[in-house]
Amino acid sequence: MPEWIWPGNDPVVPSDDRGLAYGHGVFETLRVTPAGPVLLEAHRERLLAGCHALGIPFDADGLDAWQQQAAERGLLAPQAPAVLKVTVTAGSGGRGYRPPDTVSPRVISALVPAPSVPREGARVRLCQQPLSSMAAGGGYKTLARLEQVLASAELSDGEFEGLMAAGAGSGWVEGTRTCLFSVVDGTLVTPPREQLAVAGTLREWVVRNAGRFGLAVEERALLGADFRNHGLLLGNSVMGLVPVSECGDSIVPTNVEATRLVDDVNRELGLG
Amino acid sequence: MPEWIWPGNDPVVPSDDRGLAYGHGVFETLRVTPAGPVLLEAHRERLLAGCHALGIPFDADGLDAWQQQAAERGLLAPQAPAVLKVTVTAGSGGRGYRPPDTVSPRVISALVPAPSVPREGARVRLCQQPLSSMAAGGGYKTLARLEQVLASAELSDGEFEGLMAAGAGSGWVEGTRTCLFSVVDGTLVTPPREQLAVAGTLREWVVRNAGRFGLAVEERALLGADFRNHGLLLGNSVMGLVPVSECGDSIVPTNVEATRLVDDVNRELGLG
Repeated sequence: MPEWIWPGNDPVVPSDDRGLAYGHGVFETLRVTPAGPVLLEAHRERLLAGCHALGIPFDADGLDAWQQQAAERGLLAPQAPAVLKVTVTAGSGGRGYRPPDTVSPRVISALVPAPSVPREGARVRLCQQPLSSMAAGGGYKTLARLEQVLASAELSDGEFEGLMAAGAGSGWVEGTRTCLFSVVDGTLVTPPREQLAVAGTLREWVVRNAGRFGLAVEERALLGADFRNHGLLLGNSVMGLVPVSECGDSIVPTNVEATRLVDDVNRELGLG
Repeated sequence: MPEWIWPGNDPVVPSDDRGLAYGHGVFETLRVTPAGPVLLEAHRERLLAGCHALGIPFDADGLDAWQQQAAERGLLAPQAPAVLKVTVTAGSGGRGYRPPDTVSPRVISALVPAPSVPREGARVRLCQQPLSSMAAGGGYKTLARLEQVLASAELSDGEFEGLMAAGAGSGWVEGTRTCLFSVVDGTLVTPPREQLAVAGTLREWVVRNAGRFGLAVEERALLGADFRNHGLLLGNSVMGLVPVSECGDSIVPTNVEATRLVDDVNRELGLG
């Protein structure tokens, strides 16, 4: 049975937890509102795929048990919108890096305030910190997120997000905590999944539903010329889609098609 | 002031620790014996460099304070050889990935048993899990060690270590927790620092002192032909140098020069 850690007074974990020691675990952040969680199924799938890839025996039955207990605690449908974070680690034990023969997962749940989102337009920065793509983490939301931490540390107050490139000249592929989109003449342009550190749940949903919103899809890294000429959207499943208004010292335009996509997506998912 | 967590009854950390959440921290494992710690200065340097790179304000003064308290607790010179692990995380707080304006480090110390080391010869496996080199972690011993965890999970009982390559055809560059060496006709061959995930403290010492042991140094990845013809040594500062006797299904030879290097290094550092 997993060990459950629920929100409460100063919750703690054993200091030998393998998530702390080695990043041996995964997490998800779910937007929860009185109407329930947003994109729950996509978060479930990514969490379980990550556990499987990392050799953590936490499967759909375990997740069902978590969901039931979380629901009983009112965590899945709080009175005010919030963010529910669930972390599954490989627990304690093992000999150094080598996991124990029987991994006993530890499941940590925490409710954090919903972020305040600049709906009218976000300021972003182009970060120096490069992104090494999903090579290491497989697109799962593992606990090894140092690149995102270092990129975030570059942000000044008032800058909402930092854009990251996979290397010099590669184009911009991901925000520290968001996926990137540009709407170019009826086509939704977004970097391909295999260039991302995290396979975004909102991104998957938007790409799958683009046709319904009247858009074709092209997967490629974004260039400065894309944002300057056509604008840039950021998004994740906690904040929905957000237009970018400034990038560094440059004004970023918004086009009508992008504004319509923001409205359509956020309304349909109950975000924004 | 840092928050100190010392060995005791079931030590815990707050569940919002940034080391757990994002791998935002570094650690060192020191061999400690009645004679004191092995290669203490090299561990201090790597720890402080890692804290600096990760924006964790833990400097030489903080480390001196840790060392004094650790000494008072008898952790630096226990009666039987052991391993002292010290982890420095970015503590709690921040908004998501973004660190708080004032990072307050958390320093976790733990004493673990010394590993049993097959001095007569280790069995190793060639791992599937690739290594992404120090690009991401800068050679510091960050808490993001998933590649090493996944490689270690490939090992069968009786296999002491797994060798990792930087990619197909790149040669073997590092063990999951050791550096690699081959002694080829009077030359110590070891993969270059920039190909490693962790800049090994024992490796640095051996390379710097190779001349005294009568060996030239060549830095390049190791090939199967190197171990088959000349043998292979593994090492880190906790276990010292260890000869490899088998790799997968193949017998690995040991040559006289390598045996002499193992004896010289382990004797001089009080390892083995």
